[in-house]
Order: sequence, then structure tokens, then C-alpha cells
Amino acid sequence: MTIERVRRETREAVAGNGLLDRRAFLKSGAALAAAVSGYTLTESATAEPLANDPWSQVAGGIAPAYEQRSRFEAATMRTQNNPKGEPRPQNLRTPHHLLNGAITPNSLHFVVAMGGVPDIDPDRHRLVIHGLVKRPLAFTLDTLARYPMVSRVTFLECGGNSAPLFSNAPIQANVQALHGLVSCSEWTGVRLSTLLEETGIDPKAKWLIAEGADGPSVSRSVPMTKAMDDAMIALYQNGERLMPGNGYPMRLLLPGWEGNMQVKWLRRLKLVEAPAMSYYEARTYAPILPNGKAYQFYFLQEVKSFITHPSPGLKLNGAGFYEISGIAYSANGRIAKVMVTADGGKSWAQAALQQPVHPKAFTRFRVPWRWDGGPLVLQSRAWDEGGNVQPTRAEVVARRGQTRTPVTNPAAFTSQHYNGPTSWGVEANGEVKHVYA
Amino acid sequence: MTIERVRRETREAVAGNGLLDRRAFLKSGAALAAAVSGYTLTESATAEPLANDPWSQVAGGIAPAYEQRSRFEAATMRTQNNPKGEPRPQNLRTPHHLLNGAITPNSLHFVVAMGGVPDIDPDRHRLVIHGLVKRPLAFTLDTLARYPMVSRVTFLECGGNSAPLFSNAPIQANVQALHGLVSCSEWTGVRLSTLLEETGIDPKAKWLIAEGADGPSVSRSVPMTKAMDDAMIALYQNGERLMPGNGYPMRLLLPGWEGNMQVKWLRRLKLVEAPAMSYYEARTYAPILPNGKAYQFYFLQEVKSFITHPSPGLKLNGAGFYEISGIAYSANGRIAKVMVTADGGKSWAQAALQQPVHPKAFTRFRVPWRWDGGPLVLQSRAWDEGGNVQPTRAEVVARRGQTRTPVTNPAAFTSQHYNGPTSWGVEANGEVKHVYA
Repeated sequence: MTIERVRRETREAVAGNGLLDRRAFLKSGAALAAAVSGYTLTESATAEPLANDPWSQVAGGIAPAYEQRSRFEAATMRTQNNPKGEPRPQNLRTPHHLLNGAITPNSLHFVVAMGGVPDIDPDRHRLVIHGLVKRPLAFTLDTLARYPMVSRVTFLECGGNSAPLFSNAPIQANVQALHGLVSCSEWTGVRLSTLLEETGIDPKAKWLIAEGADGPSVSRSVPMTKAMDDAMIALYQNGERLMPGNGYPMRLLLPGWEGNMQVKWLRRLKLVEAPAMSYYEARTYAPILPNGKAYQFYFLQEVKSFITHPSPGLKLNGAGFYEISGIAYSANGRIAKVMVTADGGKSWAQAALQQPVHPKAFTRFRVPWRWDGGPLVLQSRAWDEGGNVQPTRAEVVARRGQTRTPVTNPAAFTSQHYNGPTSWGVEANGEVKHVYA
Repeated sequence: MTIERVRRETREAVAGNGLLDRRAFLKSGAALAAAVSGYTLTESATAEPLANDPWSQVAGGIAPAYEQRSRFEAATMRTQNNPKGEPRPQNLRTPHHLLNGAITPNSLHFVVAMGGVPDIDPDRHRLVIHGLVKRPLAFTLDTLARYPMVSRVTFLECGGNSAPLFSNAPIQANVQALHGLVSCSEWTGVRLSTLLEETGIDPKAKWLIAEGADGPSVSRSVPMTKAMDDAMIALYQNGERLMPGNGYPMRLLLPGWEGNMQVKWLRRLKLVEAPAMSYYEARTYAPILPNGKAYQFYFLQEVKSFITHPSPGLKLNGAGFYEISGIAYSANGRIAKVMVTADGGKSWAQAALQQPVHPKAFTRFRVPWRWDGGPLVLQSRAWDEGGNVQPTRAEVVARRGQTRTPVTNPAAFTSQHYNGPTSWGVEANGEVKHVYA
């Protein structure tokens, strides 16, 4: 390492344990050669003529009409909690540690299916809007296709995502197991307000009950204020029709709100005066708080962030340069700032936010980092444009309770809406573990 | 139709044959009931209790770890020109008429593969950067993973996309056949300039030769100015690893430039003083102009737009309200404006642009429209933020030539970079045909 490089890096370090200035790579001369030289290959690999790998010496294969991934990517999968489809919910979690960017591919978007995935014939399916309306209407996919559409990139998160972090001891699991019930897509469809202008609204209507066409007829009550704001009947996900697990042929989309309310396989919206107190709003998504009251009708998925790289299972391969990157999002609009610490909270560096930052969407954040090979603790903390910040874990559990490890009763994990930080302990051997800090 | 509605619609019409103000649905009271009442179902469909479809009466299926589309979506496919993989290029075209939004799902992204799709083991693949550098280096996927990354949404277009529009008579085909060699994704990877800072650059280097690891070793010459601007070694496409047909495990990404230059299965970048005059830059992507010169080293995919809804194959189902929507993009930055005509160019309405508008990316445009049931011609025309506008078709063929129908020699279609308008003739029976206007 040259004297110049040492000087430059000292100048660029902005927080403890090697966090560098987020703008380091926008300037010239920020070469990392010394950092990764242990990983570059011998010069023979770069000499003419280049050695040919076997696939460079034969004709390639046939690209199919609907493409599938490389066979070498088979490990990039959602986890299934219920792969045999027993009569209980199916949860499939997104492998954030194996993805990058901000869009989640459709095949890897998280799914919670209370009664399995219905096999719906789109030509027979209808969306009924009735109850306190002036003119009840039933819409087919063909009729919906004639209405004005909108697209938006938005995250979708289960209220139960990150529930393991309510445990009194850090559960050893990776980012997929801890935070895999959140994903982000570009959704396209018809504004619900457009359809409600068609049916007309009886002024007595304050809520609507959204009901799915799945076996359990999952239903949730939604305030009319949200229905008339940015609610959408989503028909396309990342350009193509919704995946079956995400509500094919249509779902309710309530940007930023609890996933369970965004009813999939949507078959009706009934306008009513008061909420229905349905099973999922009265029980599953209404956990009991330490003060004995229920945490009910709490809709927002508030500001949150977590580091995906590095994270458990992605072992660091020796000291040197790495990029720390992760995901931040908030129901309250755009992410304004993400701070990252490499010394357990003593000092913080501001992360770069991938532009453009969409409201209520994943924002990828990144910080350059030179690891000196010693043990340390990484953590991120996000702010949104409304001035909201992630609470500390201590603040979350003080307000909403803590579960105990080892867990013998899975119902102990019904606490919802954890949005505190996540801490990764990096060990000297490069392994990454879930810790509390 | 009430008198109020007639008055309002007359006010909102902004161009001939029923084009409405693009802001009509941002205002209240823009209900379309009269337009689509022929499509709403009888009131019995909305009466309690709702009839249960068969899929609402049984337990649902199992969501797989890597999800697949509904069996009812099997027709949403890329077209294959060479499904048996004969020793000639494979072209697979995106079905834009069946998609919506701005993101193209990975499985439906267009592919041109000159020698088929190689089956690359990512652990063995290397990217070599050598030639006029200070220090030649070979990078594996593991070493690349340590570098700072960036994400960007960008379109990718084959220079030969839209070539049928060079024909002297309008070829009867749908938007997939005419314009299916362009798609748009979120790409994530390492800036090429970051890697070139690692190798260092000999000041004599003015070009680099990018070479793929596929059988034909497709290679193209790229100016160093682009390499140091926004070129990327792309590792992820819409969040997951690249699809095999799009260069797994890595490709060169040159936002806005001719697709063939964005070499897939990238195995080396050799810095040189002058272009290599490779096969694809000296022959295939260098068509002969009317003045006898070759149209060579023309990199930009300039401002362009086309209407996807309605389009051939999407028959209009009777007079009334529809949304006209389509895609616009430009290598020169953001789309600034799209105008749409429904009377063959006599009058124009400004389209709404889906926000946010990314530079060098698909921008979905939309115009509300009330079709009176008569024959007419639709067309769109786009401007970019650099002030560039799509030329007329007459201007394009005057500069670059015209081919003749019927085509007996496929080489007659080697003209490149058509960016004139596309016109759809709507007939009284609702059918849509390709016309020149």
C-alpha cells in the first residue's frame, strides 16, 4: 500500500472500524487494488491467447419462449414453512442476501397464503363492488382493461415480518428468515378511486370489506380514506400478470400498509359503516400488548432498514475492502437518510441512497468499508421524509413486549410490525451472526 | 348519458376523434359509467350471497420455492424465430401488447443470441481486463462482489428492432413482431470505470474490445469515453442474477446504446488504440445507406415511441371509453413529452407520463380516449429532454433507404435503428392494423 493510498484512505474514513465516505467512488483515484489483490488471479489468466472454457467451444443452447434461470442458481429460492401444503398458512420468504438492487423478481416475491393458492380462471373471475354504493357493479378483467391505469413501485410487507426480533435473545438465522416477508415490485392496475366513482359512494360508507376468492375467503376492513387515496386494483407485477401466490388475477394494493390487508385473489369490496372485525384483524394481526390492550387496526409498515450484504451466511473472505449494502423503506414516503455503524453504535457513516428514491418503495443503500479483520458489530438506521426514525430495539420491546427463547409455542411470535434495527456481529474468521447491540 | 357528462366530456376532449385531457382522471367526477356500461354484469352478480366459484370452495395449492405463472398465462410468451437452435441467430421478442408498466420481467426480456446460449459455470468464469492497461487483472464473481455497486433502470434495444418499418408497405404484424427487440430492466453491477481504475489505463487506449464467452466469441469495439461514463458490468437483472439468454453470469451494459455492443457472457475487455472492425460492427450492424456509405459505429438508440394498447391483436370491443397507452424511451436521457393523434396527425393530445421518469428507460405514456366507433389512425410521437424528436417515417427512409415487400431476401431487412413513428389503423369492427400515415 502506497503512502498516497494510506493518506487518502485516512481522509476518506468517516466512522469507526473502516467506514468510508459514501462519495469515495464518485471521485477519481479511489482504486481498491490493494484491498482486493488477494483475490485477483495470476497474470497467466490475462495472457494472450485467453484459455477457452468448454462453453466457448461449442454451440450454445436454445433460449425458451419463457426463460428460466441458470441451473447454477437453484439455491436462490424462497424458503417454504409448509412445503406439503398442510391445512395451515404457507409462508415463503424472499432471499434478500442473494439478491441486489431494489426490485424483487416475481418468482421470489414473498407469499403468505392462509389457505393455499387458488387456481383461478381469469375469464370467470369477477370483482364485485357493492354495499353502500349508488350502483353495484361487477368487473371482469376485460372491463378493467378499459379503465385508466397507473404504475408504481412499492414495497409490500407482512405485519409479521421480522417477528423473531421480539425474542429476548438473538435468534440465529439469516436475513431471509428474519426479514424475508417483505418485497418490492412495480405494480400496474386501476386506481380503486376510479372504480368507486363508477359505483358512486353512499356518504354513510366509512370502511370497505375486501374479500378474497381463496378457500378461507380472507377478509379485511379498509378505511375509505385509504381507498380514495392511493389504493389500486393491481393487475400486473413487474410488467406481467400477477403470480398466483400474489393474487392472480387481481389483488388489492394499499401502498405501505400491512400485507394481509392487501387482499389477494380479490373478489369483492363491500362498502360499510364500520369494520367487520374479521378473523385476521380481530385475532392474528391484533397481538396483545404489555398493557393488556390489543395492537389492532395498526396499518402502517413504518420506517425500517436492514443490511443484506454482509449478513449471516455470506462469510467475509479476509480483511480488506467490501461494500456494505441493504434495504430501507417506509410507509410514510421516501427514505431521507440511512446511517450505518461498524462499531456497534459509537460512530456512524451516512450511506449513499440509490437514485431515484421512490416513496413507499425499497431504497438500496450502500457504504464503502475497509474491514481490518477484527470483530465488530454492523447496524443500519433509517429516517424517512416525514422525520420518522427507526426506534431502538429497547424502545420497541418496551412498548410491545418481548418473547422468550427457546420458543416452545410458535404463537409467542405473533407480535407484529417490528421496525427496530438489526445488528450483525462480524467475527474475526469472517462469519456473520445475529446479535443485539 | 346525462347532459352534465356530455358537457364535461366536450370540455375534456383535446384532440380529434375523442382524445381526452390527460388530467381527466386526476379530477373528481370523471366517471366512465356510460362508457363501459355495456360491459358491466347484471345486478344478480352483485347480490348477496355472492356465488362461489369452484376455487373458493377448496383448499388452494402449494406455492413453490421459485414461483411459476398461472397456467392461464401460457400465451404470454416471447416469439422464437429459431426454436430448434439451428446454426443461425436466435431472436426472441417481448410481447409488449400483453404486458403493462415499464419493467419487463426477466423471463420475457428480448434475446438475440448469435450462437445460442452458453451454459456457464459461474465459479469458473472470469472477466479479464488487459491490453493497454497498467496492470492486467482477472475478476471472478467473488471478487466483483466486493466492489461498490450501482443500480439503474434502463432499456436495452437491438439495433435491428423495428426493421420491418423500413419496408415500402406496412407489414401486417403485431407490436411484438415489429418492436419486440427492446425491453427494460433494473440492472445492478459494478461500474466499468471502477474496474478500470484498478487496472489503470494507458493513455494510448481509445477503445476497448469487449468479447463474449459464447461459441462465436461475439466481439464489439466500444469507445473509452462510454466505458468511463455509465458503462456497467451487470450482475443482477430485476434483483436476481442475469437470465442465461441475457449474459449469465455477467454482461456489458452500455445504457442507451445498440444492444449488440452490450456484450453478453462477457469474458474480456481489451484496451486498444483503434476499433477491431469485428464481424458485427463491420457487417451486420453496418448497413449500406442510399448514398453508398455504410451506417457504421452508430451507437445511440434514439428517441422512439409506440402504442401498445390498442395494437394489432387487441381488438376493441365496441365504441366507448379506452385508455391508449404505450412506451417511449431515448438514449439521450429522459422522455420530455409524448403526443398522440387519433386522426392520423391532424390534431394531437399530450399524453400523461408515468412518474418518475428515468433517463434512458421505458416511460409508460397514457391518454384517455372515447372511441366513437368509426375508423381512424392512431400514432404517437416522443421528444426527449435533449430536444430530439422522432423523425417522420418519410425522413427516416429518405436518409437510410427502404426495403420492398414482399421480401424474398431476408438480408433486405438489415437496416438498423428505425426510430420513426408507428401507426395503427382502427377499423369500424374494432380490429387494429399496421398502416403508414
